[in-house]
Amino acid sequence: MQQTEIIWSETEQKIAQEAFSKAYQRETSFLINQIRSQATEIVDLDQVWQLHDFLSARRHQIDGKYDYQYSALIFVFAQLVKEGWLHLKDLEGLDQDKLAKIAALTRM
Amino acid sequence: MQQTEIIWSETEQKIAQEAFSKAYQRETSFLINQIRSQATEIVDLDQVWQLHDFLSARRHQIDGKYDYQYSALIFVFAQLVKEGWLHLKDLEGLDQDKLAKIAALTRM
Repeated sequence: MQQTEIIWSETEQKIAQEAFSKAYQRETSFLINQIRSQATEIVDLDQVWQLHDFLSARRHQIDGKYDYQYSALIFVFAQLVKEGWLHLKDLEGLDQDKLAKIAALTRM
Repeated sequence: MQQTEIIWSETEQKIAQEAFSKAYQRETSFLINQIRSQATEIVDLDQVWQLHDFLSARRHQIDGKYDYQYSALIFVFAQLVKEGWLHLKDLEGLDQDKLAKIAALTRM
C-alpha cells in the first residue's frame, strides 16, 4: 500500500481531521479518568513509581500516534479503530477505497 | 570535611538508620498525598504530562538522596534537615562533632 500517493479531497480532509480529533478526545479523556482513579488508590511509593512508568509509556504512545500526517493516516485510523477510539462510522464520507483499506488493516 | 574518615559507632549507626528511615517515611508519605491530591485536580492532558514531569523529577531526587552511605551521611542529614524531613532532635545521640557539622551545613 503506497500511502504517499493517496489523495485526500478537501471534504475528506475535514472528515479526517474531525475523526482524528474525536479519537484524541476520547483517548485522552479516558487517560485522565484513569490517572485520577489510579491515583486515589496509591498507598505506597512503589505505586507512585508504577504510575510514573505508566505515564512514561502512555506519553510515548500518544505523542507517537497523534502525529497528523496524511501519508500515515490510513494506518493511524486503522490502529485507532482497533483500539476502540474510533469507529468506522466516524470515517463515513471518505472514499470507498480508503475505507476498505482501513477496514482491512483493522482485521490484521 | 573528610567524610570518608568519620567513624560511626554501632549506637550511632542505629540512630542514623532510624533517622534516615524516618525522613524517608515523611518525605514519601508527603509525596503520596501530594500525588493523590494533584491527580484529583487533573482536567486536561497538559496537567497529566505536568504530573509526569513532576514524578520524573521527584523520582530522580529521591533515588539520589536516599542512598545510605556512611561517607555521605553528614551531607544527606544536613540536606534532609534543611528540607524539613528531619529535625536535629531526630539525630540526638550522635556525637557532638557530627551534630555540629550537620548543624553548620544546614546554615549554608
